[in-house]
Amino acid sequence: MKVIHNEAHGRHDPSHQFAGGRQSKHADAPARIEKILSALREADLEVIPPHFYCVDAIRTVHSKDYVDYLSGAYEAWVAAGKSPAGVIPGTFPVRAIWRRPDELSRRAGWHCLDTETPITEHTFEAAVGSACCALTAADLLLAGESRAYALCRPPGHHAGRDHCGGYCYFNNAALAATRLRDGSGTACKVAILDVDGHHGNGTQSIFYESSDVLYASVHADPNVTYPYYWGYAEETGAGVGAGFNLNVPLSPRADETTYFGALAGALEAAQRFGPDFLVVSLGTDGSADDRLGPFALSTGAFAEMGQRIAEAGVPTLVVQEGGYHLATLGECVALFLKALQGKMGTIPY
Amino acid sequence: MKVIHNEAHGRHDPSHQFAGGRQSKHADAPARIEKILSALREADLEVIPPHFYCVDAIRTVHSKDYVDYLSGAYEAWVAAGKSPAGVIPGTFPVRAIWRRPDELSRRAGWHCLDTETPITEHTFEAAVGSACCALTAADLLLAGESRAYALCRPPGHHAGRDHCGGYCYFNNAALAATRLRDGSGTACKVAILDVDGHHGNGTQSIFYESSDVLYASVHADPNVTYPYYWGYAEETGAGVGAGFNLNVPLSPRADETTYFGALAGALEAAQRFGPDFLVVSLGTDGSADDRLGPFALSTGAFAEMGQRIAEAGVPTLVVQEGGYHLATLGECVALFLKALQGKMGTIPY
Repeated sequence: MKVIHNEAHGRHDPSHQFAGGRQSKHADAPARIEKILSALREADLEVIPPHFYCVDAIRTVHSKDYVDYLSGAYEAWVAAGKSPAGVIPGTFPVRAIWRRPDELSRRAGWHCLDTETPITEHTFEAAVGSACCALTAADLLLAGESRAYALCRPPGHHAGRDHCGGYCYFNNAALAATRLRDGSGTACKVAILDVDGHHGNGTQSIFYESSDVLYASVHADPNVTYPYYWGYAEETGAGVGAGFNLNVPLSPRADETTYFGALAGALEAAQRFGPDFLVVSLGTDGSADDRLGPFALSTGAFAEMGQRIAEAGVPTLVVQEGGYHLATLGECVALFLKALQGKMGTIPY
Repeated sequence: MKVIHNEAHGRHDPSHQFAGGRQSKHADAPARIEKILSALREADLEVIPPHFYCVDAIRTVHSKDYVDYLSGAYEAWVAAGKSPAGVIPGTFPVRAIWRRPDELSRRAGWHCLDTETPITEHTFEAAVGSACCALTAADLLLAGESRAYALCRPPGHHAGRDHCGGYCYFNNAALAATRLRDGSGTACKVAILDVDGHHGNGTQSIFYESSDVLYASVHADPNVTYPYYWGYAEETGAGVGAGFNLNVPLSPRADETTYFGALAGALEAAQRFGPDFLVVSLGTDGSADDRLGPFALSTGAFAEMGQRIAEAGVPTLVVQEGGYHLATLGECVALFLKALQGKMGTIPY
């Protein structure tokens, strides 16, 4: 299994965020990727750089408006006298009539859902590089590989068609799923399984009215865990997408038995759907060590996750999402990928 | 003209806010009210305390859900381990399907539109006191007075039915207008004229579908000035309220001639409406000295504003909104009220 890695990811390195009424250190540190990378090198996985894709590839998922904003926001923000540490919105369009302001520096809350996702000088470049990792992985599967791992940073599953949020700017999983769906030349179905501890509200919103991409997620109850406003069980899709969105919110105190019961349900739904490809949004923030994560999974649980997903017998693209505990992050990812790879022989093609 | 003043307003005194990507001092300082008060005492205006009103009076405008939230949010927030300096939301429901979380400490972004409106330990108490000032002023007009001034702090015009924002928690102008409309026993029309430098998005949203309360506002273009998402000229009301909402956004560089031309148009619309009462949302942040304000009005412009409004010949209730320059704030308010009072004799009743 190839690992696709963008060396320039570290140029995106926000200094701070606002959370819980306090200014605090930003958790998506470049060191996360270095930790994963060294664990994967020890496991003898081949690491390759992403291909270059032009911005049209990103616009298969994201609006022109949003891509233009993300590319120009930092410069406009600094020109308006705001903090050179990065764009952090302060005003948001709440539930009422609204209009998008024209001025880029005033649009921060239009294109973002929180105060934890700064746009710094090099964020756009890093987000494009991260998206290219996912697109490259999709092309590997389209070329016949049965597994690929996109080592994405920044992550993607909280980013919607026209907004960032939750450390995410472009939705790497949605970009990969869209490329897989559209790239094989025939009618094609893609299932996305999201095992990050947080609900992937961005991915859900992008495919909410689609019947050819199924989204299934196991995550902590949004009533108490980010992103709060999405991820409830009653969100099942709309229009032709009705029935193609599955949320399994769990109590943050759920034990591994409960967790794997929920995962089995989500996997079963994905298999019933009969996908040609599976995209896994892999977060390791469900690990017991992860202070930002909601669950208390053991390191070994990630091996079991990889094995169960492998047993689905579907060509699988893994996209890195969250996971912030530097000491065990690499091990969790390596165990997951090794278990996933171990079953490669059983894939019927 | 009586001035209604809540002595306990100073118990609401947020230490900081997040704006422009930075943590900064909160601008709605208790000293604002002391400055206004001393200028009004010099002008020999009578200062009285507000009457007590039970929470039902506040629920004529605000939802039960929101009042419950505002009353319990601080305790829940601190219990959840977040900053004891006050509730400042970090995550907001952007434009997509959403659901309100049950947990109070997770609902901060549901009930607020920015990161500049902290809920501190005594905010609820101060907001109730501020609302009582406006309600008391309304009762004075209902009892036959032709003028009253509610010295409200916190201000109100950015607060909607179920959200705070822009330093505002309860919408004092909307509470007064509702009490005036409903309290006279006969069919009654109320015009609200908003001369704060910022658009009163909360007031607009509360009466957007009403034909018995007209909202007219002169303010800086929201494309470049808070609250960004509302206040555009095309927002003219909806349903039976269509045509009863008038926004006159001006360039922040507008001179006094332009400003008073716009004000004349708004006043004319209010008079055409034939109101039984006029509620003025008075902000002095259009003053040239005000660093938070958009315009460059002279101190004398506030006297002219008061005189023009007096010429409308309608019983008038003035509610204090913004205005942050401590050195001239009191003078601006006193000049406005003296000019307004000077014309009392012309009121035909």
